[in-house]
Amino acid sequence: MKNLESMALRWTEQGLELLDQRLLPQREVWLGIQNTDDMISAIKALSVRGAPLIGVAAALALAKAARDGASVSSLREQSANLRAARPTAVNLMNAIDRMNPTLDAGVEKIMATAIDLFDEDVRLCNEIARHGRTVLQDGDRVLTHCNTGGLATAGVGTAFGILRRAHESGMKLHVFVDETRPLLQGGRLTAWECAQVGIPATLITDNMAAYEMSLGQVNKVIVGADRIAANGDFANKIGTYSLAVLCYYHRIPFYVAAPGTTVDPECASGPDIEIEQRHPDEVRGVAGAFGSVQWAAPNVAVDNPAFDVTPADLVSGWILDRGLLTAKDIKEGALRC
Amino acid sequence: MKNLESMALRWTEQGLELLDQRLLPQREVWLGIQNTDDMISAIKALSVRGAPLIGVAAALALAKAARDGASVSSLREQSANLRAARPTAVNLMNAIDRMNPTLDAGVEKIMATAIDLFDEDVRLCNEIARHGRTVLQDGDRVLTHCNTGGLATAGVGTAFGILRRAHESGMKLHVFVDETRPLLQGGRLTAWECAQVGIPATLITDNMAAYEMSLGQVNKVIVGADRIAANGDFANKIGTYSLAVLCYYHRIPFYVAAPGTTVDPECASGPDIEIEQRHPDEVRGVAGAFGSVQWAAPNVAVDNPAFDVTPADLVSGWILDRGLLTAKDIKEGALRC
Repeated sequence: MKNLESMALRWTEQGLELLDQRLLPQREVWLGIQNTDDMISAIKALSVRGAPLIGVAAALALAKAARDGASVSSLREQSANLRAARPTAVNLMNAIDRMNPTLDAGVEKIMATAIDLFDEDVRLCNEIARHGRTVLQDGDRVLTHCNTGGLATAGVGTAFGILRRAHESGMKLHVFVDETRPLLQGGRLTAWECAQVGIPATLITDNMAAYEMSLGQVNKVIVGADRIAANGDFANKIGTYSLAVLCYYHRIPFYVAAPGTTVDPECASGPDIEIEQRHPDEVRGVAGAFGSVQWAAPNVAVDNPAFDVTPADLVSGWILDRGLLTAKDIKEGALRC
Repeated sequence: MKNLESMALRWTEQGLELLDQRLLPQREVWLGIQNTDDMISAIKALSVRGAPLIGVAAALALAKAARDGASVSSLREQSANLRAARPTAVNLMNAIDRMNPTLDAGVEKIMATAIDLFDEDVRLCNEIARHGRTVLQDGDRVLTHCNTGGLATAGVGTAFGILRRAHESGMKLHVFVDETRPLLQGGRLTAWECAQVGIPATLITDNMAAYEMSLGQVNKVIVGADRIAANGDFANKIGTYSLAVLCYYHRIPFYVAAPGTTVDPECASGPDIEIEQRHPDEVRGVAGAFGSVQWAAPNVAVDNPAFDVTPADLVSGWILDRGLLTAKDIKEGALRC
């Protein structure tokens, strides 16, 4: 059996393991995944996160179930449960839809398909990084949102992968990391990942981005996507739309980077994307391996959409594995198939 | 001696006390202020906060020092130290400048001047609320930032005071409270104050504001100010500028509300306002009476400006105690004297 290893996922003879991202950066703990229920819990709890990595991880959990002897009918049931674990990220649905036709084709075929999904994500990240490099220049000061690096994909990442590869190739970059309330993926994960790969970085709160732009501290923004509609609208972590509007006002290029697996041609436009509402306590305080505090009164009403939708007209370019698409490309139907 | 009492300050025969705002909403603890050093510490630690309240509190601390027998030369020194406790809020400088000419005029005069400053702030808040009501309509869904209520002034508040008085007069309002990272004045204080005065409110993270606007959930924004320049530019809590840009894009009215004591005619425009840089740990985590956690790696570089500057061209109206000023009024020099 082929072993797989990424920054946050391992698939070996010992089994399937996830780096528990709730515990970073304080502790690096690998979580053993015994079955698809474990994986569904890990997805819901955000122990595994990042739209591409969730898809790959779900496929591997299904492959493990097949290897462990689950019947075809049980695999079909588990597949449906995995597919419903998070509603917004289309990669999860895409990955499961790729697995489904193999579920009655035997363990070898099921495993090979899951491994293909992993390998494909690694390649997609490298291609995104290659095309994304063309929008960067020496001296750029790039703001990124949430975490879109090696913790979010099987490969080097999407938006963050572009910055990492450009940095590794000798380009001089400074990265602004916004903390990404409520779940702090920027403050916890991207800031950690910047240090891991040696990119100079500055951490800010989300509400500082506009001011940094007005001072000329930030001259580009690159974000990831959880789902891209056929017209170029896309859903991504809450706060993305805010950055897009701020870029528009400050005449700063705003790019979205994602693998083709994030594109949903069945979804005509942004308003068709279902937005997951999460628990109010995430906004009333913070919780994680670093501890847990709640500063707001426990009875205060909260709105907590996990994602927002950015319309295509605020996007300077769509950096996909197949190339850098422009608004003209999108209008001509580049995302419709 | 006349007793004074506001939501967060008491001045009685027992002495001068502040409601320690670092401990809200978990605990309501009154802090005894023995001398001006205590007050300077309280200002720096944000136990007392809100530009208008800081000015009044500093003046009362100076009056207390006079009552306790400090010499004129000592009062002058203490006055200079108080004046330097925070660099951005002009109300502090204004209040001290009003006290300074009285420092050799005897205890009675000094105390009367400080009490006048308190009474004046109460009146200013009521006048702001009266003029601010004219920009509100039944059914408005108003976003406000930071805390600008009874905890920030000697009276009913500035931006929040408008909402409170309108609500008390029977107007149907819904308030969106952004949490105001890094120090969470919205999540801790304004959400608490909404409950205290019974206004329906929804707490969101700062990066959700744009999305709420795009959904039509927010149709007006009113914020406070720490300093207003002669051309109408103003400094306020970090995140204010971001809201102003987002309002501009969404064609949502954006108002700033402040007493005339916040206007600094000596300051020509926004770039002349000094912006205080605060400790990086405020961004690496959170700390307060609710507990203390740090989620970012301790060595990560941080930018932490306490305020930002919003240019006049993003402001729909300046709600001052003397009336609602328009861009035309400002251009004609309304803030130059």
